[in-house]
Amino acid sequence: MNSVAIIGASGYTGGELLRMLLNHDKVEITEITSRQYDGVPVHKIHPHIRDSGLEFKNKEVSELDADIVFTATPHGASMKIVPDILETGAKVVDLSGDYRYHDRSVYEKWYGIKHTDDLKAVFGLPEIYRDEIKKANLVANPGCFPTGAILSSYPLVKNNLVDRIVIDSKSGVSGAGVKLTEATHYPNIADNINPYKISSHRHMSEIQQELHGFDDVKVSFTPHLVPVNRGIQTTSHSFLINDITTEELRKIYEKEYKGEYFIKLMDEGEIPHLSSVRGSNFVHIGGFEIDETGRVIMLSAIDNLVKGASGQAIQNMNILLGIDESNGLKHFGLHP
Amino acid sequence: MNSVAIIGASGYTGGELLRMLLNHDKVEITEITSRQYDGVPVHKIHPHIRDSGLEFKNKEVSELDADIVFTATPHGASMKIVPDILETGAKVVDLSGDYRYHDRSVYEKWYGIKHTDDLKAVFGLPEIYRDEIKKANLVANPGCFPTGAILSSYPLVKNNLVDRIVIDSKSGVSGAGVKLTEATHYPNIADNINPYKISSHRHMSEIQQELHGFDDVKVSFTPHLVPVNRGIQTTSHSFLINDITTEELRKIYEKEYKGEYFIKLMDEGEIPHLSSVRGSNFVHIGGFEIDETGRVIMLSAIDNLVKGASGQAIQNMNILLGIDESNGLKHFGLHP
Amino acid sequence: MNSVAIIGASGYTGGELLRMLLNHDKVEITEITSRQYDGVPVHKIHPHIRDSGLEFKNKEVSELDADIVFTATPHGASMKIVPDILETGAKVVDLSGDYRYHDRSVYEKWYGIKHTDDLKAVFGLPEIYRDEIKKANLVANPGCFPTGAILSSYPLVKNNLVDRIVIDSKSGVSGAGVKLTEATHYPNIADNINPYKISSHRHMSEIQQELHGFDDVKVSFTPHLVPVNRGIQTTSHSFLINDITTEELRKIYEKEYKGEYFIKLMDEGEIPHLSSVRGSNFVHIGGFEIDETGRVIMLSAIDNLVKGASGQAIQNMNILLGIDESNGLKHFGLHP
Amino acid sequence: MNSVAIIGASGYTGGELLRMLLNHDKVEITEITSRQYDGVPVHKIHPHIRDSGLEFKNKEVSELDADIVFTATPHGASMKIVPDILETGAKVVDLSGDYRYHDRSVYEKWYGIKHTDDLKAVFGLPEIYRDEIKKANLVANPGCFPTGAILSSYPLVKNNLVDRIVIDSKSGVSGAGVKLTEATHYPNIADNINPYKISSHRHMSEIQQELHGFDDVKVSFTPHLVPVNRGIQTTSHSFLINDITTEELRKIYEKEYKGEYFIKLMDEGEIPHLSSVRGSNFVHIGGFEIDETGRVIMLSAIDNLVKGASGQAIQNMNILLGIDESNGLKHFGLHP
Repeated sequence: MNSVAIIGASGYTGGELLRMLLNHDKVEITEITSRQYDGVPVHKIHPHIRDSGLEFKNKEVSELDADIVFTATPHGASMKIVPDILETGAKVVDLSGDYRYHDRSVYEKWYGIKHTDDLKAVFGLPEIYRDEIKKANLVANPGCFPTGAILSSYPLVKNNLVDRIVIDSKSGVSGAGVKLTEATHYPNIADNINPYKISSHRHMSEIQQELHGFDDVKVSFTPHLVPVNRGIQTTSHSFLINDITTEELRKIYEKEYKGEYFIKLMDEGEIPHLSSVRGSNFVHIGGFEIDETGRVIMLSAIDNLVKGASGQAIQNMNILLGIDESNGLKHFGLHP
Repeated sequence: MNSVAIIGASGYTGGELLRMLLNHDKVEITEITSRQYDGVPVHKIHPHIRDSGLEFKNKEVSELDADIVFTATPHGASMKIVPDILETGAKVVDLSGDYRYHDRSVYEKWYGIKHTDDLKAVFGLPEIYRDEIKKANLVANPGCFPTGAILSSYPLVKNNLVDRIVIDSKSGVSGAGVKLTEATHYPNIADNINPYKISSHRHMSEIQQELHGFDDVKVSFTPHLVPVNRGIQTTSHSFLINDITTEELRKIYEKEYKGEYFIKLMDEGEIPHLSSVRGSNFVHIGGFEIDETGRVIMLSAIDNLVKGASGQAIQNMNILLGIDESNGLKHFGLHP
Repeated sequence: MNSVAIIGASGYTGGELLRMLLNHDKVEITEITSRQYDGVPVHKIHPHIRDSGLEFKNKEVSELDADIVFTATPHGASMKIVPDILETGAKVVDLSGDYRYHDRSVYEKWYGIKHTDDLKAVFGLPEIYRDEIKKANLVANPGCFPTGAILSSYPLVKNNLVDRIVIDSKSGVSGAGVKLTEATHYPNIADNINPYKISSHRHMSEIQQELHGFDDVKVSFTPHLVPVNRGIQTTSHSFLINDITTEELRKIYEKEYKGEYFIKLMDEGEIPHLSSVRGSNFVHIGGFEIDETGRVIMLSAIDNLVKGASGQAIQNMNILLGIDESNGLKHFGLHP
Repeated sequence: MNSVAIIGASGYTGGELLRMLLNHDKVEITEITSRQYDGVPVHKIHPHIRDSGLEFKNKEVSELDADIVFTATPHGASMKIVPDILETGAKVVDLSGDYRYHDRSVYEKWYGIKHTDDLKAVFGLPEIYRDEIKKANLVANPGCFPTGAILSSYPLVKNNLVDRIVIDSKSGVSGAGVKLTEATHYPNIADNINPYKISSHRHMSEIQQELHGFDDVKVSFTPHLVPVNRGIQTTSHSFLINDITTEELRKIYEKEYKGEYFIKLMDEGEIPHLSSVRGSNFVHIGGFEIDETGRVIMLSAIDNLVKGASGQAIQNMNILLGIDESNGLKHFGLHP
């Protein structure tokens, strides 16, 4: 049994780590921390998680004694504690944006925060970086939008098929967190579709980092908040350099994602739906269409709190621990 | 490993049986039947359940070879096949209304169907009838509204505290099933609250059967369809015969439900929420208030497809198999 | 053309007054005030109301020059300004709770505020108090829950038919206002039904005042917040003193509400729906059923921001001005 | 007073015509037809429209006696009756797709229906074709998606700014009509985002017709069904031929739409929201951003049943009648 600690367990991603790890048979949660809720039992903050015996502790990270530590801390906060946690000998999966960038100046530009250390981290998208994750001590868990966006379009850029990608994403409101904001006030979300930061969301830079790498592709991104609790539906519009058929397109994805437990490619005529992945770590990828203007349309559906955050973090943990990657993550989505 | 068959697996309750049983480590699904979908792989009907290796078969029940059979068949259809299934030696959990009534004339009145056999069944509410279920061959899984209603009010009638109960229930739309109806057309549900069969829903008779038994209590019921996918929120208004305090009220519930794994009594100030039980078999019970007119207000929240149907059916199966009642049902709800 | 001023026009009820009064052909909005938004054009706060030429002013009430003043101010704030407004010669429709009670000690108990004046006001429910409103200078616009509750049950108590009424109400979230709260955070509302203040909501006292008057009837009330933007659906459970038929019940309502422009009694088999009254001042009343326990079930649907607040305030204004009561309020609801 | 008839008044667009025309002071509805509901009073089908005195009639179009006829009939049905209606001397606003195409072979390709007449119609988008509409007898009311799409992007193509446009649209469910379908079953819509006909929706051809005209621009379109009753939110991604600034971009729109009553350009920092136009004929246009890849992002919000259908049809009627274009359409949206 491996011991696990969660730093900053009072938010939605913390709640999801708890929900899934409490049903994981190879690890035990030994500590959960929160400055604000020292001594408070879990169910007072996460009312669905009852009789777990866990309570929040306000504790220094240097006092932690765990094999794996999840840092579900805000951007800018993680970099202040991760070095100390690594010193305790624990491996770390960080859910913030702090360690996702190869080039720290990109981070500093988009997050407006000076980076304070130069730790090497692996970008924690197992379907692309599995081998690197196995050897890592520090995994930077990807952002929610980037997870859906990259997986929907990665085979296109890896195979040099397109020269421009427009990612139009629709996110459930839980992605905005537990904090009260105008944007998440019920009457502002219900019956509305809210485009926001339409040309300047920071996740664009993370998507660009991962999809640019292969060639000079123009990558754009516009997110929308939609009246849904969970899930990110991604519509990827890309423009072909050379003609291919939809059959060839499908084969490229089949080859790329062969053997991937969490990636499910839709049959012809099937559309990826948020309800099919709700609460689960699966990614549904579909689309595989090309219109008369040479536009490729690819679609993906993930649960933003699971494959887009805590589930992927557990997937990374499983890899770090050398156990079956699907451990504790086998449950299907909650449809309807 | 026990073998399990599901008759009529193409509806929502069938999908939920599949979702949960595929993560149950003591049983194996060996057969799923559907007349309509013979030869169709599961994911074509339940798009979230992929690569399970299962497909629907159109098969006679006499050919089944399973330890446990779930009949997720319509009212009136179950009674035509259950006798034959029992003959194969299997135990049966029936999810229809066919076997829920002690008095078959009540069934015939409310369902408008002539009953065709006289099999003895146990009403499958484990928190009340656990000992009888253990010895049964045929368990009649309770209705969704009755499960939430009975559990919220049972201690009141068992202890002769009240002489009248009004159950005002609010159900998610999945309770109406996969079949297209005017009532479930999105524009008729969204932004609406739909009271229906306000004085004559058939579940009233099932609630009355279970809550009447102890004394002469007037039991009324009005259901509402609400813009929610899953869940039944029950508000129970009861009228005290003699004064008691809210502390005494709470103690009566604590005593009645002591040790019940799936029943969670809310702390003072906590409200049972559908999101806390979504996708799970837990029942959250709260309220414990008495107003100046002598009205007791009790509240409960369940997932109508889980504790209100398929989860409770699996709980009954676990009891029938003599294994831990919470097997395959330990996961918490999906909040938010 | 009559001049109208709105005090506290930045909330949802202020927005609704603006939306409807801008299409009213007998009045002109001359001033809208807000302390917080002095000098701000209306559309910055109410983005749907554009090019109206109006902007908020921070102005003393004694400087107002209007025939009618709406005070859309918080409880406790109205009583501090209404006396001064009346001194300007204007008539006032107050949307707060400050003047709704015959007995100010009831107000002080439920609102926890010391009342500071002894002005006589008329309870502004025109269907009951039209004659008194005609002669008034100060109208206390009813609460949203009370409007739906009283109109659904008033004929029952006026005719001494019942000895107990339980009001189970379901309100859209706009009723909670523009202020950010835990209760109105999208993930806490969506897919949930939220009972709250289940035995002690202050609107209970307002409903009791109006329904008690005729006889000794026990009146109880439990509100729920539901995932709907607008509307209050009321289910009224009452208990008959003597038997009557459903035909007699319907006749009593038809007689009571004969000629009422805004009250629509549903045909047999019709259910009042929020979508039918959304954005409109109409009240749909239905139910008219009696179950085997002697329970009468009555239903009503209103838009909480219109008939439950600003529309009713305009209806009161029309009466005060001696013009057609339906002026500016003739539009039907927005279905779907 | 002009007389108006509505053919096929039982659907959602028929209901909206009724709702708005009943508050229009220059026209009178004299006849509404429906084959299915001959003799049925309006409120049995449109429960919000009560005591209007109107009932459906099954009547031959040649018997109509009206100045203006709205044909809210299915695609393929309009072309069978419009010639006969024109013969009666009435002017016609057709809400189907039958007369929207300059080139009937495009219609035949996308609708799979042989066109049976060669009547000249004007494309009824007043902001572009006002002068032609004034002189027309037959106006082809635009589709809902095209209305939002064309108005958001028209200034870009008219000014030769871009060479490719990708329209990513999100539509409320009322756009799918009153007919029950899998796609509109509540559990399939709630908590989901449904891309559909991602490369082949017939509205693409209508958008292409109107945006191609000026130059060789590649126009693509992907629609999504979203859990909203009303509204189409359009995100238009276009690619600049030559650099311009966001200030220049905004000025081009301001110039193009100067004086347009129903078009509201958002201030900097404002986002067009469905709630701001819900129930109204206004179009909110915003965005005005350009990202580092040369992508222009434009946004629009309309009510699909109003500006996207019945409101625009009334706007066209007003023009045909030579009266103020905003007559009966002045009301603002229903926010929240």
